[in-house]
Amino acid sequence: MRILLGQINPTIGDFEGNTQKILRVIEHAKEKKVDIVAFPEMSICGYQPEDLVMHAEFVEGMQHALEKIMRASSGLMVVVGLVRSNPVGGEKPLFNSAAIIQDGKLVGFEDKCLLPTYDVFDEKRYFESGKSVQIWKYKGKKIAIMVCEDIWQHAGLVEYTNYAHDPVLDLVPHKPDLLINISASPYHFQKPEVRIKVCAATAKTLHCPVFLCCQVGGNDQLIFDGYSLFVDGEGHFRQNAAGFKEDEMLIDLEKPPAQQEFKYDALSDLYNALVLGVRDYFHKQGFKKGCLGLSGGIDSALVACIAKDALGKENVLALGMPSRFSSASSIVDAKELAHNLQIDFMDVPIEGPFGAYLDLLEPHFKGKPFDVTEENMQARVRGMILMSISNKLGYIVLGTGNKSELALGYCTLYGDMCAGLGVISDLTKKQVYALSRWINREKEVIPVSIIQKIPSAELRPNQKDTDSLPEYDIIDAVLEAYVEGFLSAEEIAQKQKLPLAVVQDLIRRIHSAEYKRRQAAPGIRVSRKAFGVGRRYPIVQKWK
Amino acid sequence: MRILLGQINPTIGDFEGNTQKILRVIEHAKEKKVDIVAFPEMSICGYQPEDLVMHAEFVEGMQHALEKIMRASSGLMVVVGLVRSNPVGGEKPLFNSAAIIQDGKLVGFEDKCLLPTYDVFDEKRYFESGKSVQIWKYKGKKIAIMVCEDIWQHAGLVEYTNYAHDPVLDLVPHKPDLLINISASPYHFQKPEVRIKVCAATAKTLHCPVFLCCQVGGNDQLIFDGYSLFVDGEGHFRQNAAGFKEDEMLIDLEKPPAQQEFKYDALSDLYNALVLGVRDYFHKQGFKKGCLGLSGGIDSALVACIAKDALGKENVLALGMPSRFSSASSIVDAKELAHNLQIDFMDVPIEGPFGAYLDLLEPHFKGKPFDVTEENMQARVRGMILMSISNKLGYIVLGTGNKSELALGYCTLYGDMCAGLGVISDLTKKQVYALSRWINREKEVIPVSIIQKIPSAELRPNQKDTDSLPEYDIIDAVLEAYVEGFLSAEEIAQKQKLPLAVVQDLIRRIHSAEYKRRQAAPGIRVSRKAFGVGRRYPIVQKWK
Repeated sequence: MRILLGQINPTIGDFEGNTQKILRVIEHAKEKKVDIVAFPEMSICGYQPEDLVMHAEFVEGMQHALEKIMRASSGLMVVVGLVRSNPVGGEKPLFNSAAIIQDGKLVGFEDKCLLPTYDVFDEKRYFESGKSVQIWKYKGKKIAIMVCEDIWQHAGLVEYTNYAHDPVLDLVPHKPDLLINISASPYHFQKPEVRIKVCAATAKTLHCPVFLCCQVGGNDQLIFDGYSLFVDGEGHFRQNAAGFKEDEMLIDLEKPPAQQEFKYDALSDLYNALVLGVRDYFHKQGFKKGCLGLSGGIDSALVACIAKDALGKENVLALGMPSRFSSASSIVDAKELAHNLQIDFMDVPIEGPFGAYLDLLEPHFKGKPFDVTEENMQARVRGMILMSISNKLGYIVLGTGNKSELALGYCTLYGDMCAGLGVISDLTKKQVYALSRWINREKEVIPVSIIQKIPSAELRPNQKDTDSLPEYDIIDAVLEAYVEGFLSAEEIAQKQKLPLAVVQDLIRRIHSAEYKRRQAAPGIRVSRKAFGVGRRYPIVQKWK
Repeated sequence: MRILLGQINPTIGDFEGNTQKILRVIEHAKEKKVDIVAFPEMSICGYQPEDLVMHAEFVEGMQHALEKIMRASSGLMVVVGLVRSNPVGGEKPLFNSAAIIQDGKLVGFEDKCLLPTYDVFDEKRYFESGKSVQIWKYKGKKIAIMVCEDIWQHAGLVEYTNYAHDPVLDLVPHKPDLLINISASPYHFQKPEVRIKVCAATAKTLHCPVFLCCQVGGNDQLIFDGYSLFVDGEGHFRQNAAGFKEDEMLIDLEKPPAQQEFKYDALSDLYNALVLGVRDYFHKQGFKKGCLGLSGGIDSALVACIAKDALGKENVLALGMPSRFSSASSIVDAKELAHNLQIDFMDVPIEGPFGAYLDLLEPHFKGKPFDVTEENMQARVRGMILMSISNKLGYIVLGTGNKSELALGYCTLYGDMCAGLGVISDLTKKQVYALSRWINREKEVIPVSIIQKIPSAELRPNQKDTDSLPEYDIIDAVLEAYVEGFLSAEEIAQKQKLPLAVVQDLIRRIHSAEYKRRQAAPGIRVSRKAFGVGRRYPIVQKWK
């Protein structure tokens, strides 16, 4: 039996385009004499469509696409993910389903039983749970089909949820010959190896090979890394599809690939995730060109590299926007980086408008001293310049803030927070350094002086980040333990050997910056817990 | 039997302050010789705490508060809402519960069975469902206790959900003597009368009086209007607590109040909701002073009135920020309104910085004509001025954009969208007019010329909103039918007798403005479907 996994990159709601991708893989499947071809969870509409599924028209659109796919499926078993109306009644009007087509006929649906409702997932907002997983017979084989989360409970690796139902166990008495799970499993740092564990646990229980067919691509904050998988009936990893791009993985069960180790480079993956996130955010909307402020600091340097790889050097514009407080070396470094990347550089000093504001507001500021107001004003003049270039010349602004800054609110709303997309807003400062060094692993792309200089916002004379913040090592440790780990201040202080007051102050700052983050650009999610849609906290609260 | 409903206004996570409010009502209950005193859903932590409940420390904090309340409850039955650990296992680690205290002892919990997971609610993200509702005996009476949503299924008035379980029916065989539902039921326009229907349906089925004890206050986007209720055993409305403020409602079942009609004024409620939303957003964070741009248009005029009533006239600063395109009458009208409201007015013309930007960017704009770029620049100069005054002098910026603009993206990101709180961002233009006329019902507070003038952003010569938009009547009709009603373009065109192309274009514009709304300030929710936390759409999508 020959099985093909169609690891496609759908665009949300693009029924026409996504169906074309599916039909193309079906053509290849026929050419390659495949028996079964599978596509990811919700491949017809893309994952996740959110409240679009509440429009009856949207769900009907998927039925029309399904009919086209059926008509193209003679001589094949096709498994394709979609949203369908719930015909049996219950709490919610929809199912998240796999449609099972055999030789051009729809033989049924496998409905997702376990509906993730945590972090970025809201599936119980929309969907009714499937009751159990059944067996589909094709060419003499007993085939189990599952949708994404249904395979996760068995490995005990679900977050903040302990489902009462383990759909893998439903299958034990049926002794399936193989299992195909269709997924849309978002990337986070080092996630690909977790999926192998998940598939292996099920393969061992069912004593049958497991195929994981994954979505790839960026959709708003979420990155799907692909890496579709094949694990044999003893739970050994045998093969994976490409990471971060579309791919077709063909497995012949009579001539399976040999056992091997799963090899991947976590930093390279992280970089590829960010590049894919930028590229899909732009190209799926029909945009080509991105601009960013290039300060001579490490954050914008990293974003410039990602932007170039995502959009092409001819589509990236860097703006140097020096102020009276910019160091000469920053300007030199920014220009050198732009030169190394061969991207356009525009020099737009901010003194004119900054001075005009100071003059205008002087009578209203009542002789009060220079403070964070004037610092924010500089950041906001830069935001205005970026947005004006964006509006006039058709660029989308790329955000250059990192997660450590965003956590503590060390950033200016409507200033350096201006962006269509936050490129590195889910990277800690530590990760920004690690990726920058990784970029320079073979030759100096980012000038070493950028990597070595002491972090500074350069918004007043001789400013350093540590004037207002603890060392980034401390910030990042607390950030990870509190935001991802939900540990208490006491637990963190003990574990990290930090003074309790330092930890408490950082936690307080994380909460009090919530109002800024609520207005932040969407940012590419690469950690288990990113700021944005998967992290929901009140602005007004008195707990911390 | 004497029952007191403690309609309190909790602050999220303020265990100390909320517990003090509860203890004060308990003292009053003792003075008034009450038998049972009830407090709203999650009264110890405030509703809704969102991901704060995922911190073990947060849930433990509620247990400590509960012990204090128990110690104060001798001689009483006390019902108080909180979050507790789920001791019985299941999918999620927490329950949303009512603690039942009798004479200082905790006799048990009533766990919420129906967990709203739609619109602004995410309860299945956190909570396990209670299995059924039981009877609590006290002073010879059979008392049913329920948490919020558990009473709604029975009336068939739940949104996008049809619960399999109707907890009211669990109670039928027990023949309760009375039912108390503790709620945190957010306001939307004309919602109070819906709650009476809900309580009446249950009262008629159970043939017992129903008490609805409601939270009051503003928490971020959500406004809780209070209006706790008492309905008799035939389902007749008998009494309500105050709307939009804390109150204690005492009912003696031996001497119940007479039947009456529920009287309320929908526009007055709408206004009060907005005032409460502003006041609580500020005061719960310890802020006093708000500033806003006063353009001479109707939107900012309405916000100025709300701000004055919420914060006091001495705490509101209006900024006139005229440009070369501002009409003389706009400036006069803005000053007259500030005079009528007795709020401070600061005159800050924007020409200086606007000119400085034009000069700076001229070489980069390559001779391209005046377009939306320069319009946005003016709005962004104003945003900068407001934020600088905010930073330097300690004001929070009040947003003045309405829902019709926000729907279509007829607003400038980082410009007029700059705000801590969107005051009228859930009012359609039609509602802005209606409320403004309501404010003027007795005397001219808002100059009539503001209400009568043709809407204009005044960002270029002789501009009118209708240069870029259809009439607001059309926009608002489509907005309501599409955003609240999920109707298709065809259905809307037919129902509203509009050309299909006009409706399709408006729907397309609603979706394409998603990226702006994602970065909008939180806005006070007063409709069934507000932009913000309860409406979740992808930015990148090709459906419309």
